[in-house]
Amino acid sequence: MARDTTQRRAELRDRLIDIAEDEIRANGLASLRARALADKAGCAVGAIYNVFDDLTGLVLAVNGRTFGRMGAEVSDAVRQGPSDPVGTMVVMAKGYLRFALRNPRLWRALFDVQMTADSDVPRWYLEELQRLFALIAAPLRILHPETPADRIDLMTRALFSSVHGMVLLGTEHRISAVPEDRIDEMIEFLIPRVARP
Amino acid sequence: MARDTTQRRAELRDRLIDIAEDEIRANGLASLRARALADKAGCAVGAIYNVFDDLTGLVLAVNGRTFGRMGAEVSDAVRQGPSDPVGTMVVMAKGYLRFALRNPRLWRALFDVQMTADSDVPRWYLEELQRLFALIAAPLRILHPETPADRIDLMTRALFSSVHGMVLLGTEHRISAVPEDRIDEMIEFLIPRVARP
Repeated sequence: MARDTTQRRAELRDRLIDIAEDEIRANGLASLRARALADKAGCAVGAIYNVFDDLTGLVLAVNGRTFGRMGAEVSDAVRQGPSDPVGTMVVMAKGYLRFALRNPRLWRALFDVQMTADSDVPRWYLEELQRLFALIAAPLRILHPETPADRIDLMTRALFSSVHGMVLLGTEHRISAVPEDRIDEMIEFLIPRVARP
Repeated sequence: MARDTTQRRAELRDRLIDIAEDEIRANGLASLRARALADKAGCAVGAIYNVFDDLTGLVLAVNGRTFGRMGAEVSDAVRQGPSDPVGTMVVMAKGYLRFALRNPRLWRALFDVQMTADSDVPRWYLEELQRLFALIAAPLRILHPETPADRIDLMTRALFSSVHGMVLLGTEHRISAVPEDRIDEMIEFLIPRVARP
């Protein structure tokens, strides 16, 4: 009996993540409603809160998958790209741009999820982020072998934030969207200047 | 009579912008409601739509003021700062960071206002943005006198987007907030590398 319950909970959890992922992909984070999710999952609204603390917990689970897919796609692009560290970083940034363009609403949900306090960010979520930052830090460490870890961390954040800003504003029609190849050009301009010793 | 009507409309328009600005400053864009605005302005809900096409039009008017204040503050900081072009750009970026930290919700409203199509962005709004970009382009042109205008424009957007990304993610608790002086440090690291010939 207890095993059945655990399994049913796990199945419901996966089903809810699937449904929420489809909904965010199609209509964005703001359209997520417990009532509609429960209807699609064939469960009571209350059952959602047996497997997630709140809808934010569900969105974080979707985001966890998105982080995973994004990391895998960027890593694939890196394996097929040039082997020099600066070239690797340019390929990563372009991989990030492509992922954002192909998954605009899932990508936005990574940043738009509402958390009221730092303590709301679960440890596994921060670890996923750290894994993505580690992809950027690796070529930086090759380029700057003498630089202390703390400084590499700052450079990593500065580079990721910069690429994120270019992708965000470059794809943002309400501000100043630019053609996709101009975002590539910005990345090609900026990364070598920032990353090189 | 006609002049009275015009004046009353202008007064209502200003009053609504004041009220919406206070509301966004205190509670953010998402909390803006026509009903509450009308109550505070002492007018009917319908009267709002006599002076603005929709709430987005009102938010754009608030954002226009915010752009103006931001531009003035950044220009002030530049006048008091170092006179070399790279130093000027660092001061600008730090001015942008301070403005975002002091006016977090008004600053977010600049980027979060909903517009469904490019055609929804009024000309005056794009001109305000151009004025801000021109502040960045001026020192870049001094540093790169031979570079064509189109490339300066790309460098300007890349730099603004990068600083925006660092300010956004650096102050964003749900992702990876860093202490304010670390954002300064990122700016000091990145700007000279990107801007120098």
